[in-house]
Amino acid sequence: MAENFDKHSLKNGMVVLGEPMESVGSVAFGFMLPAGAALLPEGCCGASNVILDWIFRGAGDKTSRQLSDALDGLGIHRAGGVGSSRIVIGGALEASNLAQGLDLYADIILKPSLEQEQFELARQLAIDGAHSLDDEPRQKVILKLREQFYPSPLGRSTVGEIDELKILTAEKTKQIIENKFSLSDTIFSVAGKYDFESICRQMEDLFATSNHSETKDEKQEMRDDGQTRNKYLHIDNDGAQVHIGLMTETVKPTDEDYYNARVAVEVLSGGMSARLFTEVREKRGLCYAVDARYHSLKEAAGVMCYAGTTPEKAQETLDVIIGEFKRLCEGISEAEIERAKVGLKSASILQSESSSSRAGAIGSDYYVLGRVRSLDEIKNRIEQTTVDSVLGFLQNNKFKDLTVVTIGPRQVTVK
Amino acid sequence: MAENFDKHSLKNGMVVLGEPMESVGSVAFGFMLPAGAALLPEGCCGASNVILDWIFRGAGDKTSRQLSDALDGLGIHRAGGVGSSRIVIGGALEASNLAQGLDLYADIILKPSLEQEQFELARQLAIDGAHSLDDEPRQKVILKLREQFYPSPLGRSTVGEIDELKILTAEKTKQIIENKFSLSDTIFSVAGKYDFESICRQMEDLFATSNHSETKDEKQEMRDDGQTRNKYLHIDNDGAQVHIGLMTETVKPTDEDYYNARVAVEVLSGGMSARLFTEVREKRGLCYAVDARYHSLKEAAGVMCYAGTTPEKAQETLDVIIGEFKRLCEGISEAEIERAKVGLKSASILQSESSSSRAGAIGSDYYVLGRVRSLDEIKNRIEQTTVDSVLGFLQNNKFKDLTVVTIGPRQVTVK
Repeated sequence: MAENFDKHSLKNGMVVLGEPMESVGSVAFGFMLPAGAALLPEGCCGASNVILDWIFRGAGDKTSRQLSDALDGLGIHRAGGVGSSRIVIGGALEASNLAQGLDLYADIILKPSLEQEQFELARQLAIDGAHSLDDEPRQKVILKLREQFYPSPLGRSTVGEIDELKILTAEKTKQIIENKFSLSDTIFSVAGKYDFESICRQMEDLFATSNHSETKDEKQEMRDDGQTRNKYLHIDNDGAQVHIGLMTETVKPTDEDYYNARVAVEVLSGGMSARLFTEVREKRGLCYAVDARYHSLKEAAGVMCYAGTTPEKAQETLDVIIGEFKRLCEGISEAEIERAKVGLKSASILQSESSSSRAGAIGSDYYVLGRVRSLDEIKNRIEQTTVDSVLGFLQNNKFKDLTVVTIGPRQVTVK
Repeated sequence: MAENFDKHSLKNGMVVLGEPMESVGSVAFGFMLPAGAALLPEGCCGASNVILDWIFRGAGDKTSRQLSDALDGLGIHRAGGVGSSRIVIGGALEASNLAQGLDLYADIILKPSLEQEQFELARQLAIDGAHSLDDEPRQKVILKLREQFYPSPLGRSTVGEIDELKILTAEKTKQIIENKFSLSDTIFSVAGKYDFESICRQMEDLFATSNHSETKDEKQEMRDDGQTRNKYLHIDNDGAQVHIGLMTETVKPTDEDYYNARVAVEVLSGGMSARLFTEVREKRGLCYAVDARYHSLKEAAGVMCYAGTTPEKAQETLDVIIGEFKRLCEGISEAEIERAKVGLKSASILQSESSSSRAGAIGSDYYVLGRVRSLDEIKNRIEQTTVDSVLGFLQNNKFKDLTVVTIGPRQVTVK
């Protein structure tokens, strides 16, 4: 539970962040590159996923096979993925192998081989991945919900659109990599056991290059014309359940009321005693899985709720959930706020003990807030919330304009 | 990375295990109770899931509502679930709240309210949970595979059978709890920040009771008559993908060859450079997801493989996977063994840093082996494996008798 952080800016502008953790033998790291789904050119949805695969198929002087062998030879457990604005590539490994790992990752980022034949394989796997969503309605409803909720292009599918993947070319994808892999706009974070000085020296050497153009179109225009988004979208399938996704706008992490919003969501869905679990599952047995959580991008945020239930119970489930969202501003007890605060603090403490989650958290803090929050700061800010502060926030920011998506054999009515 | 463990046996026979972890502020704990799926009476498949829900619906002097409030008031992140032989209930929380948490869990285990009305809700949710599997073919194929592979009743569904849940009564379920919640056969494990002496004192007080009968039928007879299990089972659905599950027998954790088996599986599927990923995904682009892993119960073990692919590619995917399983004994390079060993050691190190995974691991070690393995022991035993030892093992224990299950719109032929 370190409360101190390391920070250094490389000459190329890349920010290097570190959080030392006592008595772990591992280290986790990640590069956040500005090549997420929302930053892609129109018509290329899914290119980020192709890129994430393609750049690992050979880099520097190594073939695809040699690169895989080298990464596995270091025992790297790869992590990362595609977000709205960023892609993350990184992993966790034994601390003594970090330097060799960074050598490989520098090649992957700066000198990927990007061969045509490998592109076709990477693209086909991305298409298959997008297809496979049809067998995972629970994941699919959340992706569709983000698409409906966030202003375009922020909500764009992080998995990709099959139609667009089918016409994506290696040339176009290469161009995206060239435009988007901007080092000055990249955040590197590391947590666990490491020597910050030697990391910085190595990173300065590895990334001493200026052959990457700056991203020119980083700030995509919001093309929210109110036409492509629906307040209610239903996707018919003949599955066993109705999967309900529901989202309502709330304040961003930069907002003064951020912690009030987090506590409010925790009152709704922070545990077995929280309102959604109690009203939907415990009292009425309406569904097996229900939860709501705070979800944010840098540009916007919301409360995101999922429930999976039988077709017969879908309408009542949605009605009860919407009822709980709307009536939250009407009153919250002292005990509820106390439990929500304990729950949030406890989650923060547990997360602070994993090097992987800390590497992710400091990178994301820096990207969204421009600085890293300490565990003490987070705990103190949670502690400062009160019944009055949360209710005051809710009365000015009611959970009432809802975006709803359902997948299943039966539609619902959003009342 | 503690290499020392705490152990104490309570007067009632329950074993208390601990692994102290430096510089964490949290603690994780779990009770392993002998009420898993395979230990249930015939016709009650799914009762473990009902029990896991029901016992939390009020205990001691607390109503369901009060109990939820109390648990959330401590910031407990609940964990656990139903296994073949055990159910686990536990969680992780701030270390200072552990004592209060144990008070609550003692009531949940010894004095659950078990009200009829609450039973109906718990049972209905278990039925809904079993139904929801139809929308999760990836999970379902693994459950069905375990059923086909392990001798009955070991492979019994840990989710439950809908037909049997529908006729399950509160009376019968109460009787199962009385018969199965045997304290002398329970393992309690804790990892993180704790004071072992005070835990033992508290546990001795809390569980100083003899009103729980011993389990009489702990050792279920294997009813493996070779008739109910199929070498190939296909479940038709009209989903987007064919989900393939495949399993072959191998040695148990108690076997001298255990680490040779683990390294062999790692050669097959330990990373991007491993054979399955290379042959199935990288070279042929046959499927998005493929992996194999070692899977064991106390009584039996196997190599379990999953792949999800399109109907067109399903046959080739299966053929390639089976080919790789069968040809593994024909030769493995020095480099492959080295990477496999690094990968396994790295995974062990990363897991050793999480209090939750350590609490689970020491409990499971003790249950299966009768003792807890240290990280050093595991690393040393991995280190001792060689090309010769792994190939020698494989030649006597070929990965060749395969059990295959598919779910999807098209059957395959197991050649």
